[in-house]
Amino acid sequence: MVRILGLDPSLSSTGWGVIDAEGSRLKYVADGFIKTDPKQPLEERLDVLYRTLCGVIETYRPNESSIEIIFLNDNPVSTIKLSMARGVVVLAPGTYHIPLYQYEPNKVKKATVGVGKAAKTQVETMVKILLPGVKPQNNDSSDALAIAITHAHYRTAKNV
Amino acid sequence: MVRILGLDPSLSSTGWGVIDAEGSRLKYVADGFIKTDPKQPLEERLDVLYRTLCGVIETYRPNESSIEIIFLNDNPVSTIKLSMARGVVVLAPGTYHIPLYQYEPNKVKKATVGVGKAAKTQVETMVKILLPGVKPQNNDSSDALAIAITHAHYRTAKNV
Repeated sequence: MVRILGLDPSLSSTGWGVIDAEGSRLKYVADGFIKTDPKQPLEERLDVLYRTLCGVIETYRPNESSIEIIFLNDNPVSTIKLSMARGVVVLAPGTYHIPLYQYEPNKVKKATVGVGKAAKTQVETMVKILLPGVKPQNNDSSDALAIAITHAHYRTAKNV
Repeated sequence: MVRILGLDPSLSSTGWGVIDAEGSRLKYVADGFIKTDPKQPLEERLDVLYRTLCGVIETYRPNESSIEIIFLNDNPVSTIKLSMARGVVVLAPGTYHIPLYQYEPNKVKKATVGVGKAAKTQVETMVKILLPGVKPQNNDSSDALAIAITHAHYRTAKNV
């Protein structure tokens, strides 16, 4: 059994989700999101993000973690902001020496829906099917659970 | 007297510099750089960067910190990498609730050389003149000292 932390970073609201995987069997453990106050200075927002995420890790003690690879979007300022938040989110597993696995967005869609070009709503629907009974707290935590599921899928395929 | 930490982030080598400022009088305290191993996983490199920077802060106890504002460069991958490192570098003062001030690159040139369109080498020369006797450990720590000097300059001008 491996416990996986999925992470969906953003400065305003970072989603996280924890699942247990035993081969192809998946079990929901927890999910949530971390909002930061846009009125706070950048360094304080990142502090809230990092400390809360460290708390999540200390509570659920995941063995492995996963995150989406990001690409440049049309808005350079938001790319820089997202990347800064992503740096701090990636730091949290680094602090606890939990290995991090990165997946391209189409891999996440492939592992959940079965095809690389699925709609976002299809991913959300599949998260609920693959983790029976789960009601993700919001879209961000649902995306984080999808990323955890993705890692469970590929680690089995790769026989990690 | 205020102690200022200047920060020049990058994933491979982050520069830092500490100065004391009393009005327009500046005194060099320390400088250095933090290299991370490109062969290490991203999360471990960010962990080294963050922990080392926290050590610098605990050693020198700055009151304020400063950093350059970054813009998108031609290489999207390096922009994302730099921004991730920047997030972790900004987190360090956030952890200790040390206020962070951000300056555009031309402000750094203006505060050190006197004009907004100075060459990088001119900035390095001025750092040595403005902080007599200092021999910056490398270009990154010299840039970090320039950013600290910039904050000392503008905080006086603004009467912070």
